[in-house]
Amino acid sequence: MHDLQKFFADTARLVEEELDRLIPSEDRGPTTLHKAIRWSVFGGGKRFRPILVFAVGQTFGADDRSLVRTAAAIEMIHTYSLIHDDLPSMDDDDLRRGRATCHKKFGEATAILSGDALQALAFKTIAEDDALDSNTRIRLITHIASAAGTPDGMVGGQQMDLDAEGKDVSRSGVESIHRNKTGALIRASAVSGAVIANANQKDVRRIEQYADDLGLLFQITDDMIDVCQTSEALGKTAGKDVAANKATYPSVYGLRAASRMAGELLAKIESDIADLGGTNSLLVDIARFVLERES
Amino acid sequence: MHDLQKFFADTARLVEEELDRLIPSEDRGPTTLHKAIRWSVFGGGKRFRPILVFAVGQTFGADDRSLVRTAAAIEMIHTYSLIHDDLPSMDDDDLRRGRATCHKKFGEATAILSGDALQALAFKTIAEDDALDSNTRIRLITHIASAAGTPDGMVGGQQMDLDAEGKDVSRSGVESIHRNKTGALIRASAVSGAVIANANQKDVRRIEQYADDLGLLFQITDDMIDVCQTSEALGKTAGKDVAANKATYPSVYGLRAASRMAGELLAKIESDIADLGGTNSLLVDIARFVLERES
Repeated sequence: MHDLQKFFADTARLVEEELDRLIPSEDRGPTTLHKAIRWSVFGGGKRFRPILVFAVGQTFGADDRSLVRTAAAIEMIHTYSLIHDDLPSMDDDDLRRGRATCHKKFGEATAILSGDALQALAFKTIAEDDALDSNTRIRLITHIASAAGTPDGMVGGQQMDLDAEGKDVSRSGVESIHRNKTGALIRASAVSGAVIANANQKDVRRIEQYADDLGLLFQITDDMIDVCQTSEALGKTAGKDVAANKATYPSVYGLRAASRMAGELLAKIESDIADLGGTNSLLVDIARFVLERES
Repeated sequence: MHDLQKFFADTARLVEEELDRLIPSEDRGPTTLHKAIRWSVFGGGKRFRPILVFAVGQTFGADDRSLVRTAAAIEMIHTYSLIHDDLPSMDDDDLRRGRATCHKKFGEATAILSGDALQALAFKTIAEDDALDSNTRIRLITHIASAAGTPDGMVGGQQMDLDAEGKDVSRSGVESIHRNKTGALIRASAVSGAVIANANQKDVRRIEQYADDLGLLFQITDDMIDVCQTSEALGKTAGKDVAANKATYPSVYGLRAASRMAGELLAKIESDIADLGGTNSLLVDIARFVLERES
C-alpha cells in the first residue's frame, strides 16, 4: 500500500504552489476580484481532481512538471463551479469548507466574476503550458472544455440537477445528473493524466471506465456523508440535499442500498484496471480511500 | 468603398450558421439551458467581433472556413459576458436588443449557467477546429482566454467598472476600465484574424494598435449613443449609464469633447494601418462605420 496521505499532501502542495503562481496576486488590481478568487481557491479543498491527474499520470510514467499545470487548471474549473453553485439563485449556501462562501464575503457580482475569471484562466493555463507539445494541449482543452460544458458536462448536469429539485427522479435520472455534474470533470481529470503521459488508446479507455466508476463512487459517498455528518464536521451546511429535495443516492435508493452499491463499485473499479498491470495499485488505493472517507 | 452592408450581412450569416451547428439544439436535454443559450446567442446582435475577425483575416488573405469557428467562439464569449452583465447583481437589465434578458426569461440560475456553458463551448470550439493547425489553435486560445479573464481582460474590466460605480473616476480610470472591459476582446478578435492568416509580427502589432484605437472609438460612440438615444431605438434601457453613475466618456469629458476625441481617433486609426498597404481599406471603412453609427 502506498503512503497515500503523503502522496495526497505532496500533490496538493505542488498544485497549490502552481495556483499561487498562476492567479493574479491580491495587490494587483482589481484587488477585490483577486482577493475573492484567492479566498475560494485557497479555501482548503481536498484537491481530489488534481490528485487524480497526478495518480493516473504517474501510473503511466509522466513527471510532475508535465502534470502540474493541467492539474491546477482543472482545480480552477472545479473551484469556479463551486463558487457559482453556492450563489443565492443556485444552492444558496453560506458556508463552504468551514468558511463564508465567495458571495457571502465579497458579494454576488464579484462571486460571479470570480468564477468567470477562473474558467478563462484555466484554459489560458493549459494553452500556455510549455511543458507539453501543442497537440497534447489541444487534446487536454478539448476533453476539459467538453467536461465543463453542456450537454454532457458539468454545467449541463447542474441544470439537470436544478430541473430535478422537488421532483421524483428515476434511478437513471439521478445517475445521469451525477455523471454530468460531477462525473464528467472527474473523468476528464483521469483522462488528462493519461493523455499527458501519452498512454495508448486501450489504456485511455480503461482509465475512462475507472474514472466513471470512481466518480460514481465519489458521488454516492458524498451523498451519504451529507446525510450522516454534522455541519461542523463537513465545514458546510449538512442535510442540505434532503432539505432541498435533491436527487441523491440515499434518497432514491435508501441508505443501505447506496452503501452496498458503493462496495460493489470498488470491486468493479479493481477489475476496470486489472489489466493495466502491476502499476495500478495507487489507483486502487485511491478508490478504497474514496469508499472509506468520512468527509 | 466596400459594400460594407453586404460584408456585414454575409459575415453575420456565416457565423450564425456556424453557431447554430455548434450549440446544442433546443430539443437536446437539458432543454431549458439550451433554449436559454439560443435565446441569447440568436437575439440579433451586431456580430461586431466576428466581423472584425473576418475583416482582418481577409485583409491578410485567410479564407472563410479558417475564420468562421474562431469568430463564432469569440461571439460566444461576448454573449456570455452580456448574459452575466445583465444579471440583477450586476447591471440588472431587463431588456437586451429589444427582448427580455436571459435571466428575465429563464431565471437567474439558468442565465448564470448559460454564460458558463458558452465560455466552455468557445474554447472547445477552437480546440476542435480542424481547419487550423495545433499551434494556431493554441495561440488563439491564449489570446482569447487572456482577453476574457483578469487582470488585463474583460472580467477584470467588469470588476473595475463595478468598483467605480458612484465614484469620481479619473480620465485614466475610465480608459483603463474600457480598455479591459470591452477593448481586450475587440483586440483579441482583430489579432485572431491576423494569427489565422499567419500575418507577420510587424503587421500583428499594427493590427493590435488598430484594434486598441477601434475599441476605444467603439466605446466612446457606445457611451454617446447611450446618452443620446431612446430606449426604443436602442432595444435596451437608455440612459442607464448615467442613472447608475457609471464612468463613461461623456460623463468624464463632456459630450462635445468626447465627440471630438472620436473624430481624432478615426484619423489615428487610419495612420495605424497606413503601412499595411493597399489592402487596408476594409479596416478603415469599418472604423468610419463605427464613428458614424447611430445604434
